[in-house]
Amino acid sequence: PKPAYLFVDNGKAELRDATRLWGKSTYETEDTLESEHGGAKVISIGPAGEKLSLISCIITQRGSAAGRSGLGAVMGSKKLKAVAVRGEGKVPVADIAAVEKLRKEYLSIINQAPARNGLHNFGTCSHTDASAHSGDSPVKNWGGVGVVELPDVSGLSKEIFNANVTNRHGCWHCPVACRGSLKEGVGEYKYPAGTKRVEYETAAAFGAMCLNNNAEAIIMASHICNYYGIDTISAGTVIAFAMELYEHGIITKKDTGDIDLKWGNYKAMVAMTEKLARREGLGDVLADGVKKAAERIGKGAGEFAVHIGGQELGLHDPKGDFPGFAGQPTSAKNMMDAAPGRHTGGFGPSHFGWLAINAAGLCLHINTMVDGTKYAADFLAAVTGWQRSVGEILKCGERIENIRHLFNLREGDNPLERKVHGRITGQPPQTEGPLAGVTADLLEQVYWNLGALDWDRVTAKPSRKKLLELGLNDIAEELWPPQINKA
Amino acid sequence: PKPAYLFVDNGKAELRDATRLWGKSTYETEDTLESEHGGAKVISIGPAGEKLSLISCIITQRGSAAGRSGLGAVMGSKKLKAVAVRGEGKVPVADIAAVEKLRKEYLSIINQAPARNGLHNFGTCSHTDASAHSGDSPVKNWGGVGVVELPDVSGLSKEIFNANVTNRHGCWHCPVACRGSLKEGVGEYKYPAGTKRVEYETAAAFGAMCLNNNAEAIIMASHICNYYGIDTISAGTVIAFAMELYEHGIITKKDTGDIDLKWGNYKAMVAMTEKLARREGLGDVLADGVKKAAERIGKGAGEFAVHIGGQELGLHDPKGDFPGFAGQPTSAKNMMDAAPGRHTGGFGPSHFGWLAINAAGLCLHINTMVDGTKYAADFLAAVTGWQRSVGEILKCGERIENIRHLFNLREGDNPLERKVHGRITGQPPQTEGPLAGVTADLLEQVYWNLGALDWDRVTAKPSRKKLLELGLNDIAEELWPPQINKA
Repeated sequence: PKPAYLFVDNGKAELRDATRLWGKSTYETEDTLESEHGGAKVISIGPAGEKLSLISCIITQRGSAAGRSGLGAVMGSKKLKAVAVRGEGKVPVADIAAVEKLRKEYLSIINQAPARNGLHNFGTCSHTDASAHSGDSPVKNWGGVGVVELPDVSGLSKEIFNANVTNRHGCWHCPVACRGSLKEGVGEYKYPAGTKRVEYETAAAFGAMCLNNNAEAIIMASHICNYYGIDTISAGTVIAFAMELYEHGIITKKDTGDIDLKWGNYKAMVAMTEKLARREGLGDVLADGVKKAAERIGKGAGEFAVHIGGQELGLHDPKGDFPGFAGQPTSAKNMMDAAPGRHTGGFGPSHFGWLAINAAGLCLHINTMVDGTKYAADFLAAVTGWQRSVGEILKCGERIENIRHLFNLREGDNPLERKVHGRITGQPPQTEGPLAGVTADLLEQVYWNLGALDWDRVTAKPSRKKLLELGLNDIAEELWPPQINKA
Repeated sequence: PKPAYLFVDNGKAELRDATRLWGKSTYETEDTLESEHGGAKVISIGPAGEKLSLISCIITQRGSAAGRSGLGAVMGSKKLKAVAVRGEGKVPVADIAAVEKLRKEYLSIINQAPARNGLHNFGTCSHTDASAHSGDSPVKNWGGVGVVELPDVSGLSKEIFNANVTNRHGCWHCPVACRGSLKEGVGEYKYPAGTKRVEYETAAAFGAMCLNNNAEAIIMASHICNYYGIDTISAGTVIAFAMELYEHGIITKKDTGDIDLKWGNYKAMVAMTEKLARREGLGDVLADGVKKAAERIGKGAGEFAVHIGGQELGLHDPKGDFPGFAGQPTSAKNMMDAAPGRHTGGFGPSHFGWLAINAAGLCLHINTMVDGTKYAADFLAAVTGWQRSVGEILKCGERIENIRHLFNLREGDNPLERKVHGRITGQPPQTEGPLAGVTADLLEQVYWNLGALDWDRVTAKPSRKKLLELGLNDIAEELWPPQINKA
């Protein structure tokens, strides 16, 4: 089929020709469609998604991404370049007085939350330097120790990442407004005006993971990823992976096109990121993430491919159980979430609220500042008129977890069969630094939560009883057909 | 204090002097008190309980035992020789017509159950020979393989164990009647008339565990244990343990008092059982089970001490997951039950019904012939008038499991700290026989069920939410005091 984009205009949907947009960056695509359809909001893929990179993503507003799991390639495979939506509809509100009251109450809590000012002023990248040393960020492709191998993190400070910020903004009416836009780059890298301030995950991927402490290079790599439509977590990880292969001589300058992929060589990192985004040379080999790259390269490269189920991990080391983020069980979450490796994923009862809040389109950051499930229940009732208890919100999260999991199970993906790289869990443990001697209790986490979910210990199938309890009767019938019950 | 026995006469309780009974066997004690208090039923301890053997038990009817965990020593430490109970009270029944109807319905099911006739005709020992070869019975102190090391099990057939049976009997009005009494021994062993037909556990302990296939010796060892008041599972296991030490030269004839404790030497086995029961010589060392014996003997004896939490295991190898018995998770049950090692213990949701039925005084054998929890709910309603759903019966079992566990926790016994001998789980696995290559997924079983129970992954503490759900509010307050909730 010819390239197309979906235009939704006040509820009317239409596929339109996108031939002229094919090959364009996400920036250009978004600008073009926004100006052609005054007031439209646009999501789009870049050349990476068009070329079916398995780590390509969907971008809006020059850097907000549906980042993980290669969703860009899903659109690319359908030749769907973008979705543009415009409308003047109103959101009906069941009880405007209640909304106003809740708004004031929660604003007061959020504005006093310690995390709020940090996020507003400096963004999520504010702790990049601290995380590189605390054991929060994985270092050197998950194999290193920040305090030992990247002792100088002064280049990764929040002040440096924010030096070039022109304005701070956020989602509609958000009291936090954790995003920022930059002026045009005037140093070594000439990223355009409007480039987004980097997020923590990007900064960790192109920072500690690559032993790089040059913030401008991180901003440039981030810009390249946003421009071409690439997931920064996976991109930074696959560059770190390539650096490790280069260190061990598994790839050489012959493979890299003379790029000297030494640890911490930020110029090489940026250059290779661009090749990856364009699928040129070694970049083509790397453009589907570490699992595929290792398969293509062979020569024992798989030993250095740190992923779960084919996806590179979000950059909070689960051995550290980063407090206040997702809490326990972080190792198991990385392994067992329906999109493994996601730092925003969930597994087991401690994530039910998290999953419900995420699915409601509410913010996982604000969730850490307020009582998230109560917040969701309160606003749900005021806005829609649906009175739902916190228990029902949690049940909703459990239902979401089951449905996501059941989709994978039906497709033959039993998460218990996923391999977890020893560097993730500390098998063997690190010998230096803040995580010295730490091995995550992955198996214990996995099976504890399987039991709590009432999913089978071997097949990972949710029990019939559980599915019926969640109101998933149709799935219960499909998963537990009568002839099996008789056996 | 002076030895005493408790006499309960139509609800009136009185401690009476038992000086004249102290030192007597359980047989003599029971006979004496039954004849002195016409119609009384008696439980008592023998010399083993008096001497505080940690594997001593409480006996009634010459061989029915409260066998595990050294309850004989509990009575012995209180100088309580026996309890005799007599009464003419009636059991009031809420709905006699309903009881009659249920009785007929369930009798019809039980009488048609395949297991019923085997149990009635041959007792639980009926499968001793088959179990020695199937992988059900542990062999040679859990280290051997029946088909290889005890190829001839013809001496352990149900016909041989039953050759001397004079009458079959059971609990009051039981349609199964799985017990049997023997005529006086007229062969090598002169056990008295009325000696009980051996149960499977006894036959496995003094049979496959000791590489012995002489049934008369097993009957004699069983008689000695019943007479002195010793748990046969632990006694047979500690003899097997001693045989293994003897094989390795850790103990010699100097220790055994010239008894040649070779594997399968049934004469030595019987002789050592009597010494154990009387705490004489090496028997005194062995009389508190394998854990204490290994500590006393030293010289690496601990390597051969197969127990969990100090208790020898019931003799169904959990690697075999003996079907229809307790089902999954047998390894975890052995480790995690409040009385570890019990084959009648329970751990996790699959045992809730089992625990409730056991606590109700109903039969775990009949539980396998009928829908046990429905059976319990049906009779509970008819007899007491309490209408309780199957779900409530299961909840009751869960409450029992929590309370038993909480008692241990309060006393500082976290079951997660119990070591499980590698022979139990197959680490390393056996290399021959029906369990070759099998390693039980112990950790997976343990943590799955911990999650299902909502017990903490590290402390094993039930959650506050779970305790409140079970109506254990007082324990919730004690275990989760308010100052901890604020933290």
